[in-house]
Amino acid sequence: MRDLSNDTALLSLNTATVREQWSLEEIIDGCSRHDIGGIAPWRDQVAICGLDEAAERIKDVGLTVTGLCRGGMFPAADAEGRQVALDDNRRAIDEAVPLDAACLVLVVGGLPAGSKDIGDARSQVFDGLSELLEYARARRMPLAIEPLHPMYAADRACVNTLKQALDICDKLGDGIGVVADVYHIWWDPELAEQIERAGQNGRLLAYHVSDWLVPTNDFLLDRGMMGDGVIDLKSIRAMVETAGYRGFCEVEIFSGRNWWKRDPDEVLKTCIKRHQTEV
Amino acid sequence: MRDLSNDTALLSLNTATVREQWSLEEIIDGCSRHDIGGIAPWRDQVAICGLDEAAERIKDVGLTVTGLCRGGMFPAADAEGRQVALDDNRRAIDEAVPLDAACLVLVVGGLPAGSKDIGDARSQVFDGLSELLEYARARRMPLAIEPLHPMYAADRACVNTLKQALDICDKLGDGIGVVADVYHIWWDPELAEQIERAGQNGRLLAYHVSDWLVPTNDFLLDRGMMGDGVIDLKSIRAMVETAGYRGFCEVEIFSGRNWWKRDPDEVLKTCIKRHQTEV
Repeated sequence: MRDLSNDTALLSLNTATVREQWSLEEIIDGCSRHDIGGIAPWRDQVAICGLDEAAERIKDVGLTVTGLCRGGMFPAADAEGRQVALDDNRRAIDEAVPLDAACLVLVVGGLPAGSKDIGDARSQVFDGLSELLEYARARRMPLAIEPLHPMYAADRACVNTLKQALDICDKLGDGIGVVADVYHIWWDPELAEQIERAGQNGRLLAYHVSDWLVPTNDFLLDRGMMGDGVIDLKSIRAMVETAGYRGFCEVEIFSGRNWWKRDPDEVLKTCIKRHQTEV
Repeated sequence: MRDLSNDTALLSLNTATVREQWSLEEIIDGCSRHDIGGIAPWRDQVAICGLDEAAERIKDVGLTVTGLCRGGMFPAADAEGRQVALDDNRRAIDEAVPLDAACLVLVVGGLPAGSKDIGDARSQVFDGLSELLEYARARRMPLAIEPLHPMYAADRACVNTLKQALDICDKLGDGIGVVADVYHIWWDPELAEQIERAGQNGRLLAYHVSDWLVPTNDFLLDRGMMGDGVIDLKSIRAMVETAGYRGFCEVEIFSGRNWWKRDPDEVLKTCIKRHQTEV
């Protein structure tokens, strides 16, 4: 395993972690000030900053963009809705390219309003990915499916395990892989074998860290800082590194009641400390 | 598929559904009054009523006991804790026998306090099941592993998919099977094949119904009444019946803010109506 005990270069900050406190410009400056090596911005923040401006600022301070968040949300109640989603996904690729993002992160979407047909939603996701992939390949932008925890199957993503995501990737071929986010996958009985499979096939495009708190009090906004929960982070990093992963550890924490209320410089210092000791 | 449109005989009431309003005696009377065919009591309620008294009352009104809730909770921080758990599980079997329960439902337990080692917790579960199974077989009481939704992996059950539960069953042999509870498994991409596998191997010991609400506002106490959420209940019942299941549909709804606040006779009437139209 790589020694992170003095590292900041392999740490990437997903901007959601301090999005309530700072604008994208402030986050970029903060990462630079704390010698953090990577950043993963969200599209709404990029839009507010301006795409060219964001790309230039990120480049100026030498940050690696470990992913652009996010595309996806493919299923829709009708063909028009699916086209709207596809158009938006193409725009996401057009934004990821000038940012020099390592990948476009995809949260694939759940059940369309009124639907109980998760099989149909999954078919729509596959079809959407298939169509988007041509566009992405032509622009050399890797697509990264992020399997979300099964508790989000209805409303956010009907791709819920690494195995399911990798099965999709195998059907679609090159130019597509997965995000391994510990928050979503730590519970999976097939975690080790699917991470190994992802590595063997060159599909491990990003690695996201946070922690699972006990108890968890909110479905969306109660993620923990690394070390504060029950995820065996070092074991999972060992798995991804054994599988060949040499990229960043991207911190992504949605925390409405705790980290979003704190001084963002303190949050970044804590991320660095935990990256060096807990990840 | 069996026609449930006028049925109450194949409906079983898990007593958790009205546990805040009624004692076990009142629930037994309520089931009898509404011609509900089955009941699945919880051990704490049985203890308050008295085991012999509960068994006699249930027998008197002709209810089938579709399961006793619950055993499990095997992992512990030390050998003493594991022995306490095992002793308690043996007592649960001793209670299930006079109740003539179809099975002892097992929620296997999560991480011991302070542990991040889910692999170790799973080993402890396997060892505990293996030891308990001898005791259960000698008393002809089937053990039913209930895989819980992955959102409970840390604190309630580290067996989180049907596949994982069935793999355990295959290693352990006869006398053990699974509870298929739609709330926990509806999202599983391998649902159809694992239900089929469970049926082929005679492992489908119980079928539990409720619904997944969108949004869900509480990790434990916000289950929905059948028809109020996004689970495709008829499709899943078709799977279990195609797999050979001919048992009850057991309603188990933990609902702190809604159904536990209502008149329990109204709750039972709603269960019956939804059993006949939505399940």
